[in-house]
Amino acid sequence: MANQLEETLKRIQSSDGVEGFIVLNNDGVPIKSTIEHSTAVRYSGMIQMLIGPSKQMHKQFNAKDELKSMRLRTKKKEIIIVLDKLYTMIVIQNPTGAKPPI
Amino acid sequence: MANQLEETLKRIQSSDGVEGFIVLNNDGVPIKSTIEHSTAVRYSGMIQMLIGPSKQMHKQFNAKDELKSMRLRTKKKEIIIVLDKLYTMIVIQNPTGAKPPI
Repeated sequence: MANQLEETLKRIQSSDGVEGFIVLNNDGVPIKSTIEHSTAVRYSGMIQMLIGPSKQMHKQFNAKDELKSMRLRTKKKEIIIVLDKLYTMIVIQNPTGAKPPI
Repeated sequence: MANQLEETLKRIQSSDGVEGFIVLNNDGVPIKSTIEHSTAVRYSGMIQMLIGPSKQMHKQFNAKDELKSMRLRTKKKEIIIVLDKLYTMIVIQNPTGAKPPI
């Protein structure tokens, strides 16, 4: 996997409060994950349900616009979804403020 | 509308790169908006399609968890969705970095 992605994953893993990450290919299949496989697959399935409508929404307002990332903040954690041409990165974190955030 | 919400809306409107906001009641009906009504209604409909699956996703992993906000970043803008007991706030912005963000 591209060196640049490996570097990014190392940086993410050492960031504040990161619980884990999942890298999906463009078919939504986890290809790298620090999270147990069946949980990673569950996350992937649910996040695909969000990405589709989100992409559609932006295209409806501006055909040239493109969804780049999503941040879902809950009481207990934050899920960051980064969309790239070749893969989708999901980071699950619960920032404590002790170290710099992602 | 509660004084506190009015204060929040004023602060938001003067924040960096804010293009507009929409306040929805719990039925998804725009009750206050700086955006033209039909566009506000369109945003509301699409955002409801995101909120449902997002809420479900978190509950599946932790029944006690609760979705608080979502940030959708595209090439051209950012949409912030804040969920409250009584209403849902949608802010559309394109931060320039000239002023403090929301």
